[in-house]
Amino acid sequence: MIRIALDAMGGDFAPDVPVEGALAAADELPPSSEILLVGRQTEIEETLAKHGAQADRFQIVDAPDVVGMGEKPLAAVRGKPKSSIGIGLGLQKRGGADGFISAGNTGAVMAASTILLGLHPGVQRPAIGTLFPTGSEPVLVLDGGANVDCSPRELQGFAYIGAVYARDVLGRSNPTVGLLNIGEEEEKGSAAVKEAYALLKHSTHFQFIGNVEGRDILRGACDVVVCDGFVGNVVLKFYESVARLVHGLLDREVGRDVLEAPAMQRVFKVLDYSEYGGAPLLGIRGVSIICHGSSPPRAIKNAIRVAMQSVQSHLSQHIGAEFAGGEAVA
Amino acid sequence: MIRIALDAMGGDFAPDVPVEGALAAADELPPSSEILLVGRQTEIEETLAKHGAQADRFQIVDAPDVVGMGEKPLAAVRGKPKSSIGIGLGLQKRGGADGFISAGNTGAVMAASTILLGLHPGVQRPAIGTLFPTGSEPVLVLDGGANVDCSPRELQGFAYIGAVYARDVLGRSNPTVGLLNIGEEEEKGSAAVKEAYALLKHSTHFQFIGNVEGRDILRGACDVVVCDGFVGNVVLKFYESVARLVHGLLDREVGRDVLEAPAMQRVFKVLDYSEYGGAPLLGIRGVSIICHGSSPPRAIKNAIRVAMQSVQSHLSQHIGAEFAGGEAVA
Repeated sequence: MIRIALDAMGGDFAPDVPVEGALAAADELPPSSEILLVGRQTEIEETLAKHGAQADRFQIVDAPDVVGMGEKPLAAVRGKPKSSIGIGLGLQKRGGADGFISAGNTGAVMAASTILLGLHPGVQRPAIGTLFPTGSEPVLVLDGGANVDCSPRELQGFAYIGAVYARDVLGRSNPTVGLLNIGEEEEKGSAAVKEAYALLKHSTHFQFIGNVEGRDILRGACDVVVCDGFVGNVVLKFYESVARLVHGLLDREVGRDVLEAPAMQRVFKVLDYSEYGGAPLLGIRGVSIICHGSSPPRAIKNAIRVAMQSVQSHLSQHIGAEFAGGEAVA
Repeated sequence: MIRIALDAMGGDFAPDVPVEGALAAADELPPSSEILLVGRQTEIEETLAKHGAQADRFQIVDAPDVVGMGEKPLAAVRGKPKSSIGIGLGLQKRGGADGFISAGNTGAVMAASTILLGLHPGVQRPAIGTLFPTGSEPVLVLDGGANVDCSPRELQGFAYIGAVYARDVLGRSNPTVGLLNIGEEEEKGSAAVKEAYALLKHSTHFQFIGNVEGRDILRGACDVVVCDGFVGNVVLKFYESVARLVHGLLDREVGRDVLEAPAMQRVFKVLDYSEYGGAPLLGIRGVSIICHGSSPPRAIKNAIRVAMQSVQSHLSQHIGAEFAGGEAVA
């Protein structure tokens, strides 16, 4: 039995959106799997009723506290152990759930996941894995914002973590990894990136293709792109704003008729992040997926699917094994 | 008389593209201005003839050597003083020209500009200014790749340089400046960015609007976005690849008819970098504009216009004044 705990109080439109996402996911759940809704019991029950769902459709785990979107992460984690985030991750720690999903306070989910579940031995920092839509298969970029100043060793770690994710969840049997840089030549880049290159050069657990540039991400030059969380976060948020720009330009120049045609909708579906559901926090002992605060129900539903896949493929265990005496700690 | 020296040997399709760009610009040149074509005299003359232009249309400044696109910048600058880059910038140093434009080896143009023209006193590093197209006015992002590891003081300098450029060349009378970061809060970001925030907080020569995120660039949240050259270069190249992705998706989903309609061409014109002509190297004592190696003639023509504007507005002198005992060196 796989159990995924979903933070019913997380996100800009909670508990409605998480509950709707859970309802959408429930129809497609694999056998012997279960979604646990974590949050204020009465509110969840009322929301289920509002959506015409039976109260016993999901197991509800009561959590009286809620972490606000603007709260300081560490203070919130320490001061509100009975928040939906604290209770949801505590469940996983004690074996009552196999994964956790939240569209709530990102910093708090990161901090609580790291504190409550812990890191695999050898992992220096957890990384946020983000999927960038391309014309064909998505590209995993990490770190997406968990770590701003990264050491070469940490960047190296992200490559190993990313390669396991690409194999286990994205189905890339022999993943290629690139190091994000400002030029292809080995001697290019910041001090940390140059050293990371030297560390990655002799990797055998994945194909290290060397430096890649900003333009290489969308052309799908590799399965995994490694960068520090500052660069990753800036590029990720920049990309998220591109669809809006293109939409605005098309609306202005080409007109609403074309914009609303099914073919055009397919274009924007490719550029739509909620297709990928959320960003996994990788390197922790467990499964924790962080969704945008503004996630629609479809994103929650997709995050549930990704969490299930992560558990079924033993992603966390495989990441742990990679750091337990493997190349990554050489 | 304003004289702009154009590297006729720079770029992937030299001397054809620079010569075509010069011819296109010549028709729109302001009175008492001149384009000097710098490069191998015979090749330039032949190219002019090929395009049906009279040989005396431009002054040609002979430069026997050419710096290859793949050459090591410093070695090329030192080893080939008679290259079109060396001769063209030497002209400006001696007062024979007021600006320089090249689509050649970026590193070599940067190195030669810095060595031959020098930096304004107080400027720690020159910065590459890059214009990001948005739905309305373009946003200046700097540094675009000249400096990978930047100190807080250097980031502060970029803000002053950028504000002067926004005023002189982009016509923003009271420019707003944002610091690129992973969150809006003052305490966010890398060590260097946090310190830069503290340095910028009390600026009075421009409106410092605080931290901006990746998503704020395209919404035109401010006139100038400050970041180190690693982040700037990655986002710039990423953005350059977006038009290709969107074009590919539209081609696949919507079809060539719609794609080739004039309205759609206007959309791609907005996303087209060559509209802005090139990236100025800022902080040097003079005017030097770096174009993509793959620039079309229109980009060269636009770079000539920007160089003219930079000279006419006394951009370089204004940047120098900003650092001569002003806030930027406080």
